Amino acid sequence: MQQAGPSSPSCSSTSDCFPLSHRNTAECGSETSAGPEKHEPTFLSRMRSIVSFYICYLLCLGLGLACVVCVCLWNSRWRGGFAWDGSALQFNWHPVLMVTGLVVLYGNGAVLYRVPLTWGQNKLPWKLLHATLMFLSLVLSIVGLCAVFGFHNAKNLPNLYSLHSWIGIAAVALFAIQWVVGMAGFLLPCSPISLRALLKPVHVWMGGSILWLSIAACISGINEKLFFVFSGTYANLPSEALLGNSLGVLIVAFGVVVLMILSNHKWQRPDSSPEVLAYTPLLQEENE
Amino acid sequence: MQQAGPSSPSCSSTSDCFPLSHRNTAECGSETSAGPEKHEPTFLSRMRSIVSFYICYLLCLGLGLACVVCVCLWNSRWRGGFAWDGSALQFNWHPVLMVTGLVVLYGNGAVLYRVPLTWGQNKLPWKLLHATLMFLSLVLSIVGLCAVFGFHNAKNLPNLYSLHSWIGIAAVALFAIQWVVGMAGFLLPCSPISLRALLKPVHVWMGGSILWLSIAACISGINEKLFFVFSGTYANLPSEALLGNSLGVLIVAFGVVVLMILSNHKWQRPDSSPEVLAYTPLLQEENE
Repeated sequence: MQQAGPSSPSCSSTSDCFPLSHRNTAECGSETSAGPEKHEPTFLSRMRSIVSFYICYLLCLGLGLACVVCVCLWNSRWRGGFAWDGSALQFNWHPVLMVTGLVVLYGNGAVLYRVPLTWGQNKLPWKLLHATLMFLSLVLSIVGLCAVFGFHNAKNLPNLYSLHSWIGIAAVALFAIQWVVGMAGFLLPCSPISLRALLKPVHVWMGGSILWLSIAACISGINEKLFFVFSGTYANLPSEALLGNSLGVLIVAFGVVVLMILSNHKWQRPDSSPEVLAYTPLLQEENE
Repeated sequence: MQQAGPSSPSCSSTSDCFPLSHRNTAECGSETSAGPEKHEPTFLSRMRSIVSFYICYLLCLGLGLACVVCVCLWNSRWRGGFAWDGSALQFNWHPVLMVTGLVVLYGNGAVLYRVPLTWGQNKLPWKLLHATLMFLSLVLSIVGLCAVFGFHNAKNLPNLYSLHSWIGIAAVALFAIQWVVGMAGFLLPCSPISLRALLKPVHVWMGGSILWLSIAACISGINEKLFFVFSGTYANLPSEALLGNSLGVLIVAFGVVVLMILSNHKWQRPDSSPEVLAYTPLLQEENE
């Protein structure tokens, strides 16, 4: 288990491993007169932080897997399975692909930089993996939208009138813009570092917003579907309704755990390679 | 417009006004050899940050007001108004109170500490205002729940079976726990500072999660209501359906703006009074 890798100057002090302390070290040089014994977390507290991260990360992976299993089970066992023929079986791809792509894969892509295992390397491969995961997530979401549009068109049903559909389409549209702007801003070599520093907080804020928009769209979609399927008998909570409600609860729990991982400053990636240190103010932004 | 008030030692350096820089200053003392001309934002950039905050804050207030007007208009003009007699008019209090309490008042309570106007004072009055706003928000939410339970019971309709109701009740239950724990942890004088430092990130994370749970509950509730009211004619988007959908969009836009305000580190309250500086590590937590 690696906290800061070969490119990190030392990581002998915890200030290299914990971003907030790291900033202080970078600016203060060897000036530790403010009381190092007070600010320097012990080895035990560093290990506790890493262990608690991995517990949360396992919870995140477990909840994501449970969401995918649950939505697949619902649509294969209770809704008749899958096809791409304009029938209700085509519609069944919609919840599976939206939950898998727009929520689970997206959430896992969002927390990627928080995994300490990724800190010891050059950031570029992880940026590429982040962009790839997000691209896959976007593709699955778009195919999920095609599934429902194709089903509606085949049955002459109108598209994009419900609040669920407005929120869902807004989430996917913002996600597509976010991916293109993120790709151009953070991966194109010609993109200036000052632009990246400006983009970073917007990218982080918009990323969180898209996840919660997607979750709101999923909750309203599952709720609507269960009212369509059961009408007056939803209140009896038959097995399928219980499974649908449980899927909603799992999706929300997944979102809450992703938010916990993203909001914990101790788990932020410390970018401590010398070439990044040369741009301290930007490093501060890069660590946000 | 105030950036840091009388209790702030100087605020002549921007490091007193911007929390991240502030931490560095607190630890480095007068050590600014790392290049003050590079790290010290100009007066213009400080003003730009404050002006951009107030633009976002006005947007937040405007969107919140628009949500309240929209939900009141919908239920008074299109749904027949309000009563507390077990009829559908009692149900109408439910969306009004949940949107007003659990979303708008809650969101405004959450961003209170970001308003620069509040920075120049002792934090305690603002903590009390934060707790009061949240208490009012909780009371409105509980009355909103009573409205729907009373309506269901009067009509012999079952309670708490839909996913919308599960998410909504979870949001209010977590909110009640959050308020009690927050009150005990941050306002009781006997609460130790080390406990506050531990609680703070959990309080912030849980606060954000509750807001998004509430928004997901609102979106699914509006969507469900419009399907109940219009059944097959929702797709024609009559005026009422358009108003309901617009309410959902306004709620989401409000949540996104609140998240933007909360996620911008430059807008965090700088706690720079000398007695707080005596506990630098806790100050770091307090500023999270």
